[in-house]
Amino acid sequence: MTATTTATTVRNGVDTATLFATLDAITAQPEIATFRFRAHNRWIDGAHNRSTIKDFHAACAEDTSRTEAFTLDAGEPTILIGTDTGPNPAEYLLHALAACVTTSLVYSAAARGVRLTSVESTLEGDMDVRGAMGLSDEYRNGFERIRMTVRIAGDAPEETLRKVVQRGTDRSVVFDSITNGVPVTVDVVTG
Amino acid sequence: MTATTTATTVRNGVDTATLFATLDAITAQPEIATFRFRAHNRWIDGAHNRSTIKDFHAACAEDTSRTEAFTLDAGEPTILIGTDTGPNPAEYLLHALAACVTTSLVYSAAARGVRLTSVESTLEGDMDVRGAMGLSDEYRNGFERIRMTVRIAGDAPEETLRKVVQRGTDRSVVFDSITNGVPVTVDVVTG
Repeated sequence: MTATTTATTVRNGVDTATLFATLDAITAQPEIATFRFRAHNRWIDGAHNRSTIKDFHAACAEDTSRTEAFTLDAGEPTILIGTDTGPNPAEYLLHALAACVTTSLVYSAAARGVRLTSVESTLEGDMDVRGAMGLSDEYRNGFERIRMTVRIAGDAPEETLRKVVQRGTDRSVVFDSITNGVPVTVDVVTG
Repeated sequence: MTATTTATTVRNGVDTATLFATLDAITAQPEIATFRFRAHNRWIDGAHNRSTIKDFHAACAEDTSRTEAFTLDAGEPTILIGTDTGPNPAEYLLHALAACVTTSLVYSAAARGVRLTSVESTLEGDMDVRGAMGLSDEYRNGFERIRMTVRIAGDAPEETLRKVVQRGTDRSVVFDSITNGVPVTVDVVTG
């Protein structure tokens, strides 16, 4: 325990009073649990494209808390015939997974009274690009496998810290989406 | 066709001579097709964490073409008890999907001689947060479904443009990863 555990309800940077109030509010009114997130992407040139992310639907309304959009540039490195205008899409996928498991475990630890001091993770995804390049049907287009190593430290026994990480993967939106898959529909508008 | 189609092999910003040379090189030496991408993530505070992306393995070696790392900040909006330090992980997943399908279809169009003038996409992902918040077992943690609308224009008939989009999803690393799932292993190091 640190010396700053006085009257604050903030743990790991998460206001646990607000967290528990949110859980209570959803239990009382389940229809506010429906969320719809969005990304808008525009091709710029070659492997360079850009997403803007701002609006989303939550708690039965369009969220208006964001005053500016986030901008994300994607690209490909030279070996994949790009000019390195940003991380490539596969790397963004690894980042999404790392970020989601981290936030899930940090929130879970906060709710359970575990004070964390550091969380770091390294992710590696393997693929044979013959799949995506259309050179062989023996290889899938996507990642064959992803390995994630999480280094965690905090004011709790090792077993508790391991449970915190387990809880992080058990409750992660992106971990579930990637390991179990999500149906994606594609509509095309031409002209 | 534009007025700049003289001696250049660049179409849609993609050097097709380099693209075809790459495909030939992989066919001649398949072991160079093994790629390993990486992300390193560090928790900062609350829902704020940051990934650095630089090194990757390709063509039997560690790539050294990137002189600086890309930095990506994740966060959560107020309603999810964050301070909006970046897009949230679920939004990053949508961006990864948009970026990958876009690059795949742009490269495919370049290879097939289709000159594109614009590609835009809007992605929406639906979820009920009772899953990820641990309030109900009736809802999964991840996205229930993702809808992608692609607007495409170029110097080709509508049917060809639709085939280009189809080729984009058929050959996308992230589209395959998300729709079919990827096995993820997690190792934990404490202390």
